[in-house]
Amino acid sequence: MHGYGDFTETDEDYCNLFEDECANGRLDNGGTNRMALTADDDLQRNWFIRQLSESGMHTLVDGIGNIYGRYEWIEGAPFVLAGSHLDSQENGGLYDGAYGVVCALAAARHIARLNDRGCWTPKKNLAVVSWTNEEGARFEPSIMGSRVFTKALDIETVLESKDEHGVRLGDELVRLGWNGPDEWIEPVDAYAEIHVEQGSCLERTGTNIGVVVGNWAAVKIDVAVEGEQSHTGATPMPERRDALYAAALVIVETRKVADSYPDDQVHTSVTKLRTFPHSPNIVTSKANFHIEVRSASYATAIEASEKLIASFERLASVSGTAIRTMNMETRENMSYWRPGWDLSEHVADVLGLSHSRIKTISGHDSVAMNAKYPTVMLFAPSAGGYAHSPKEYTDPEAQIKGMHELTGVLMQLLQ
Amino acid sequence: MHGYGDFTETDEDYCNLFEDECANGRLDNGGTNRMALTADDDLQRNWFIRQLSESGMHTLVDGIGNIYGRYEWIEGAPFVLAGSHLDSQENGGLYDGAYGVVCALAAARHIARLNDRGCWTPKKNLAVVSWTNEEGARFEPSIMGSRVFTKALDIETVLESKDEHGVRLGDELVRLGWNGPDEWIEPVDAYAEIHVEQGSCLERTGTNIGVVVGNWAAVKIDVAVEGEQSHTGATPMPERRDALYAAALVIVETRKVADSYPDDQVHTSVTKLRTFPHSPNIVTSKANFHIEVRSASYATAIEASEKLIASFERLASVSGTAIRTMNMETRENMSYWRPGWDLSEHVADVLGLSHSRIKTISGHDSVAMNAKYPTVMLFAPSAGGYAHSPKEYTDPEAQIKGMHELTGVLMQLLQ
Repeated sequence: MHGYGDFTETDEDYCNLFEDECANGRLDNGGTNRMALTADDDLQRNWFIRQLSESGMHTLVDGIGNIYGRYEWIEGAPFVLAGSHLDSQENGGLYDGAYGVVCALAAARHIARLNDRGCWTPKKNLAVVSWTNEEGARFEPSIMGSRVFTKALDIETVLESKDEHGVRLGDELVRLGWNGPDEWIEPVDAYAEIHVEQGSCLERTGTNIGVVVGNWAAVKIDVAVEGEQSHTGATPMPERRDALYAAALVIVETRKVADSYPDDQVHTSVTKLRTFPHSPNIVTSKANFHIEVRSASYATAIEASEKLIASFERLASVSGTAIRTMNMETRENMSYWRPGWDLSEHVADVLGLSHSRIKTISGHDSVAMNAKYPTVMLFAPSAGGYAHSPKEYTDPEAQIKGMHELTGVLMQLLQ
Repeated sequence: MHGYGDFTETDEDYCNLFEDECANGRLDNGGTNRMALTADDDLQRNWFIRQLSESGMHTLVDGIGNIYGRYEWIEGAPFVLAGSHLDSQENGGLYDGAYGVVCALAAARHIARLNDRGCWTPKKNLAVVSWTNEEGARFEPSIMGSRVFTKALDIETVLESKDEHGVRLGDELVRLGWNGPDEWIEPVDAYAEIHVEQGSCLERTGTNIGVVVGNWAAVKIDVAVEGEQSHTGATPMPERRDALYAAALVIVETRKVADSYPDDQVHTSVTKLRTFPHSPNIVTSKANFHIEVRSASYATAIEASEKLIASFERLASVSGTAIRTMNMETRENMSYWRPGWDLSEHVADVLGLSHSRIKTISGHDSVAMNAKYPTVMLFAPSAGGYAHSPKEYTDPEAQIKGMHELTGVLMQLLQ
């Protein structure tokens, strides 16, 4: 016996919860579309509140719409938090975020049952959380709710964030009633999250659990190109100031920067390209896009970004445009809480789960929490490594193993 | 005396008409936004109908919404047509198309006055026309109304054209009441059009009138790229199948193809890039865009297009995507009606206007008409060569000289 209780009832509970959770925003292609503060995100939030209440938890909603369900077993004791996010990308997968929330909920109910039945007694309180807008798909920046929680982001600033149609995040929170009245004031003892890997390391090595020991650094850059409208036919080629051509040169250069580092050390991307005007017969005058540069090393990410930005002057000159960096956000690489590694490995050993240490390249709510609180981050395998795609998949057995691991970790943290 | 009548009254009439014409769709930046079958295009069409009626013309509207005003002086005689288009690009200039329509209207009123006063007697009938959707900015393809008139395009097909929001052109015609009941059945003797040059040749050489002797060939290609959604952070670079990166490679290659020909022989452009999904954290899976390749020689345009399309396989392989040519439209280079050159030059000489022979790189309604009818095409200078831009400008004196030239040409054609 491993000491974390009998999982038979919990496994069934988890499977029902996850199936239920997948219903809102479900797409015909097998994916989901539940961008932050859309109608389907609203449905899902209401579903989550119902689950928390039915679990006998006390629910809180804070000013940025983070939803907490609390088991306050010991008055005044600090809380262990566990969770992730229920929002998704526009055409996203079923597991990203949602898996972690459902695991935290199932684990909390398991622990509550053990407590109710007198089989195990926690020494701290436990809360399950779903953070608002981790994805940043509709409103930027991403990892929003958890960063407001840790005060890395100012709530007044992010309430002003606007989606592509100019809709203000603060107005959407009010419209849907998710601008909650509550404030989290209790001490936080630790935070734990499980997420699908979004890569194929665990699958390739047949490993059950990734113990996340650190996160990659990231540099996120918003770029604006200014050219000049002209006629796609009549204007002589040397006179064109084509903002789309300039954007293409930057996109190609961004890839070249990644390719200039060996061994996939640097990941780069360009996304969200918007152009104006949008006519077949007009040379584009304005282009805006988003660049990301990531590396395990902050110094390397910065170096690669600087290389890229240094090329803008040449690319602007080639295309007759102005290329400007509008906004730049950096995320440092950090180690996760060192005692959490050992604790996670101990739990996996006790549960008979294979494990390996891994870094997360993607950002997560746990990255924000890790900057302030002792934080444990776990990965379950992603089939084929698919992420931010309807093709995301983690088989039920692997899901359940991850849920057991999170449960064990929470029980260790609650001791 | 030049024999084309006293222009004093006509010059004032022209200036008033042009000022009036500029009101609808006017932008703060000095340009205009009157895309086909928008509210402002509708206002402009109603304005045009009123002008035609007040000029004592009989008005017709055909099934594609082309608007004709007719002076039928001699029953059964063939018609000379003159006109251009009143629709504009999204953020276009004041002169493109509208200048030609207003010139044709002022010229027709001038000729009618001469006739009314017994100063000059036409031997044929005269009609002024505004063709529907020359720009192709909202509904593709461009040069639509005139090509439906010449039967180069099938009306049933173009009625199915949809804008970016999926709105059907045929439905917009019905909604606004521009699906006219009339059909043009009379013989067309000739067509004449004046347009701003959209280049700077006339301005550079201080020439009043461009006698257009031919049009460049064009190849228009719609391209679709299919990649695969993945995570901009986690997905290893070699595994990405980024449709936006593929599009960027094609955009850069398209420019290279133009640059590989000396002396600005080949013009190329990529426009109207649309991507999906549109998230900062998702590698783009779909990209669609529009390519144009133009040259004075059809063989060269085809050769350049084939070079470009031949590169797609390599660029697809580099980016791990599929790059497909969805639709391809070609326009041959043609000479304008040879006797029209001499006639235009004769009129300019009589009026004391400097002139030079020129080719049009851009497409025009006259290109469509020239394929079927004796067609005269004239250019007035464009300051700075600006085109498809709010910066388009032709000074009033140059505008009036062009209007005089068109009037003279029409009087020659009506003899």
